[in-house]
Amino acid sequence: MPSRNNHHTIVALVEDKPGVLNRIASKWRQRGFNIETLAVGHSEIPGLSRMTFTVDGATHDVEQVTKQLYKVIEVVKITDITAEDVVARELAFIRVATNNSTRSLILDIASIFRANVIDVAYDSMILEVTGDEDKIEAMYELLLPYGVKELVRTGRIAMTRGGVGMHHDDGNTRRYRSAGEGKAQVGSLL
Amino acid sequence: MPSRNNHHTIVALVEDKPGVLNRIASKWRQRGFNIETLAVGHSEIPGLSRMTFTVDGATHDVEQVTKQLYKVIEVVKITDITAEDVVARELAFIRVATNNSTRSLILDIASIFRANVIDVAYDSMILEVTGDEDKIEAMYELLLPYGVKELVRTGRIAMTRGGVGMHHDDGNTRRYRSAGEGKAQVGSLL
Repeated sequence: MPSRNNHHTIVALVEDKPGVLNRIASKWRQRGFNIETLAVGHSEIPGLSRMTFTVDGATHDVEQVTKQLYKVIEVVKITDITAEDVVARELAFIRVATNNSTRSLILDIASIFRANVIDVAYDSMILEVTGDEDKIEAMYELLLPYGVKELVRTGRIAMTRGGVGMHHDDGNTRRYRSAGEGKAQVGSLL
Repeated sequence: MPSRNNHHTIVALVEDKPGVLNRIASKWRQRGFNIETLAVGHSEIPGLSRMTFTVDGATHDVEQVTKQLYKVIEVVKITDITAEDVVARELAFIRVATNNSTRSLILDIASIFRANVIDVAYDSMILEVTGDEDKIEAMYELLLPYGVKELVRTGRIAMTRGGVGMHHDDGNTRRYRSAGEGKAQVGSLL
């Protein structure tokens, strides 16, 4: 796997329209970027999806592409959150070969990584694990000697820490924030 | 959110090369499909990524596109697993507004859905939840009255149940399966 030295995490809020993924992928392609991972799902705003990319490249080049991406009409907002303080995880399924002598050893590994067994067959099981890339790769490495038959990963999703959703500094936040409005909250503790 | 009546889940094993996502997205685009969710990550085979798409459309049309996708040189294998018995989940982060009076109510909801609190600020928290689309949507709906500030989802990943990884019926399996080879396994129980 490539080093994470030049890894960038880019979050894009885009309209749910046919062809948008194609147009966005083209912009990365034109600049020679390989999209390392990509996760696309619905956002909190109806009609908009949120895409999380990881790409490998120099910061300057990534900035150039994100500027280009604003030319895609369906792109509402795009942010490079690489330098931000974020929580970032992905989900993975790992199908590993098992037999009577290896099954309990594999369950021990699953337990260490807080992975769940989500399917069991007589000669294999599927483990579900959530975590950052390093955790998933560490678990995967430990399972390799038993025979990993299949690996599927969602790719990273990420969100900035703290009270203000940085993807919402465009004013969209307010219409979602009614619960605590008008109350003195600073200094409250859990 | 659209109904899942015509939802297809497609898994593609592809080479990690610049432009491959663009070429695949183009094929869907040409047939007028909107890619609903997409998750792309590394697979168990070095140099190959596994993509999980969900698309909405008639089975016949989806078949046509999957045939077209084999013309993309980087596509190693593509399978519509919609009719298969699969485990399928996604990961989501939900940033929800909180205050002193709502925090414990939100933690109760998190607990019911086995969601984890992964970040806390004075006026919001980020919940991490894993599950199928219905579970994530149900939790999201319950949190809406408190003020959902941000939602990011990975999109679905899926794996067929049972002992034989159907993405590996091309013979690739054998080089990963050494742990149990040659032993009598049929009839073994957990």
